Amino acid sequence: MSATLAADEALARRRAAGERVLSMASGEIGLPVLPGLRERLAAASAENAYGPVAGSPELRAAAAGYWARRGLATDPVQVVAGPGSKSLLYALLLAIGGDVVVPVPGWVSYGAQARLAGAEPVPVPIRPGEGGVPDPGRLREAVSAARRAGRDPRAVVVTVPDNPTGTVAPPGTVRELAEAARELGLTVVSDEIYGDLVYGARGPVPSPARYAPERTVVTTGLTKNLALGGWRTGVARLPDGAAGRELHGRLVSVASQIWSSPPAPVQSAAAYAFGEPPEVTARVAASRRLHETVAGAVAGHVAATGAVLAPVTATCYLYPDFAPLRDRLAGAHGVRDGDGVARFLGERHGVGVLPGSAFGEPAGSLRVRLATSRLYGADDEQRLAALAAPDPLALPWIAEAVAWAGDAVADLAAGAGAAGRRF
Amino acid sequence: MSATLAADEALARRRAAGERVLSMASGEIGLPVLPGLRERLAAASAENAYGPVAGSPELRAAAAGYWARRGLATDPVQVVAGPGSKSLLYALLLAIGGDVVVPVPGWVSYGAQARLAGAEPVPVPIRPGEGGVPDPGRLREAVSAARRAGRDPRAVVVTVPDNPTGTVAPPGTVRELAEAARELGLTVVSDEIYGDLVYGARGPVPSPARYAPERTVVTTGLTKNLALGGWRTGVARLPDGAAGRELHGRLVSVASQIWSSPPAPVQSAAAYAFGEPPEVTARVAASRRLHETVAGAVAGHVAATGAVLAPVTATCYLYPDFAPLRDRLAGAHGVRDGDGVARFLGERHGVGVLPGSAFGEPAGSLRVRLATSRLYGADDEQRLAALAAPDPLALPWIAEAVAWAGDAVADLAAGAGAAGRRF
Repeated sequence: MSATLAADEALARRRAAGERVLSMASGEIGLPVLPGLRERLAAASAENAYGPVAGSPELRAAAAGYWARRGLATDPVQVVAGPGSKSLLYALLLAIGGDVVVPVPGWVSYGAQARLAGAEPVPVPIRPGEGGVPDPGRLREAVSAARRAGRDPRAVVVTVPDNPTGTVAPPGTVRELAEAARELGLTVVSDEIYGDLVYGARGPVPSPARYAPERTVVTTGLTKNLALGGWRTGVARLPDGAAGRELHGRLVSVASQIWSSPPAPVQSAAAYAFGEPPEVTARVAASRRLHETVAGAVAGHVAATGAVLAPVTATCYLYPDFAPLRDRLAGAHGVRDGDGVARFLGERHGVGVLPGSAFGEPAGSLRVRLATSRLYGADDEQRLAALAAPDPLALPWIAEAVAWAGDAVADLAAGAGAAGRRF
Repeated sequence: MSATLAADEALARRRAAGERVLSMASGEIGLPVLPGLRERLAAASAENAYGPVAGSPELRAAAAGYWARRGLATDPVQVVAGPGSKSLLYALLLAIGGDVVVPVPGWVSYGAQARLAGAEPVPVPIRPGEGGVPDPGRLREAVSAARRAGRDPRAVVVTVPDNPTGTVAPPGTVRELAEAARELGLTVVSDEIYGDLVYGARGPVPSPARYAPERTVVTTGLTKNLALGGWRTGVARLPDGAAGRELHGRLVSVASQIWSSPPAPVQSAAAYAFGEPPEVTARVAASRRLHETVAGAVAGHVAATGAVLAPVTATCYLYPDFAPLRDRLAGAHGVRDGDGVARFLGERHGVGVLPGSAFGEPAGSLRVRLATSRLYGADDEQRLAALAAPDPLALPWIAEAVAWAGDAVADLAAGAGAAGRRF
């Protein structure tokens, strides 16, 4: 964490000195709450009962419909709600037990959660450009080796679409992963929190629940598609069948001891959201277009430096690898890894990014993650204008942010030693 | 759990058959949300950011003021908010590590949480009538024995005021407990969720934080005093000093991996509540008086049976011991333990209670817990009338509920074999 902290401190110093910073480190979505959801929360302000541990019948039915519209027929009894999909992922690790395979790169909390649950994460690399899904061949090797070493892997986490790479693994790879999990007797935990943020109209994500329905748990929430991170409600879809019902029982038991139930007024608003009335689907679509446009513009600048960047097809993340520029970065800036890239961008340009080490990349990797989710405006007025704009890049604050990010990566790549863009 | 489930099923059968049941099993508070809190939640419906893991500055400052008004000077940096004090208790067990001493009887979740955290609960009995605080002498013996056996107790949980006994341990016992914890090097986790529900005007509860401030964590929330269980926000007060700061860091780290932050709109309303404006203190006082009046009336019926019942001085719980009636219960009803008492009251009278086994009582104990918190009305109109009534026992629905409970325990004790009160 030290490099992340160092980058944070550099940004904090710039802020304290009255300088502006460009926040591309956090994946928190900087967009306002849809008014219809605000109304539902307010209307539910009298709801103070715990209700069922697994969530209200209304929320579970709405979530079941949400999945059914994406090709995953779901009975509401398969649904468990919690105070965020993060909490559900943790409780699932406890409920499944044993060790857990995590993709590399992968969201930093998977491994940390595993350790809190008394498990060991088993890291398995992805195939290039197919983020979030451990390479099925390497999965077999890693699980066999772990079992020979006396460890007990029982689950594999996948992220479809992926954080940090902004890619969606192809159906063929997801199918291979699902088949490997079946052979190995692993439960698949599929984190699909970015499921509605696939660019264009490509249809539902290739969930492993299509290929190994008997062993796949899907989690999602409203944090990314509707910018409701602070409201803390997510949902899990457990497998049908005997094994799924048994896991459901264990999950609800864990939930009852750790959090009792998700916040009741939020459940009411979440049920409305998962019901997907037109205003909700329109807002999600507008957010998706905004991410695509702005991430695409930043990706153009990044690719122009000569960095390797898999085509970004979902989320609001770019995950470039500056390896082709290794010699230049070392010679011009003394930058030798992703931590160095993050430090350079933070200290010289006030641009906050996360180094690849935060996602489990090995030492020497020159990867960083850039998130565009905070670039859409300084206040709700600007952010709503960004959501509504036919061309968000024509809005001055977005144009400036994209140019700022572009200048920063260009300066990194050029090795010009310029003092950085000042504001 | 089977006895609890059996009692629940008996009640469910009665409900399905169109008969009414008297819910005295759950401690959920059946009272409406204060309108001022509803307004604050609605006003905060635009808040969708995670905010700090430890909670918003406003909530932490308000909680610090709440404790300061109770004689525990608190800096807001000592406060960590979470999605319910239950979640905070679990995260504290993870952050402290090792095994944990729990009082017997004690809230069922302490032991279950310890096991989920990979720890072993070390049960230590209370002194009679001094619920929630493990007998300090027995604590020393149990911790020494556990350490000799290779276990690693590092914390002791206390409950002041207590669930299930409805008592408040006297200051002298709490001081002894605090001194024993200091000698043994244990962190004290003091669950004070019922802290505002001490009957009369006896002043603040005797928190162990007064006697061992360097090692005591206090948790509380709005679930019991303001009937906001379904809103899911609690707070913890960490010790000042180096050890407290270190534990604070570990707790925030655990929280960041399990739940990120408490629900943002609820934090805003919770900050208002912990600020204790007059309407809030008036509502808490009215709830306290209502609990005292109704629990007192039920206690009269229970004591009339010859059961042992420590004077109830807080909460909404009665925890009688029917041991003096052991022969009569066995002879007349075949009832030989608390599970049997719960089954008899559920099947014969439709009165739901929890058996002492749910609180760790040994086999053969004839204890059950009765909660009055659901007796105040069938809807908000009745419940508001109950809060406002000079004599709640004169309200017909409360008079009927108290008489129903009284008839049920009288029938249990009389061994008359009557068919039960029918509605």
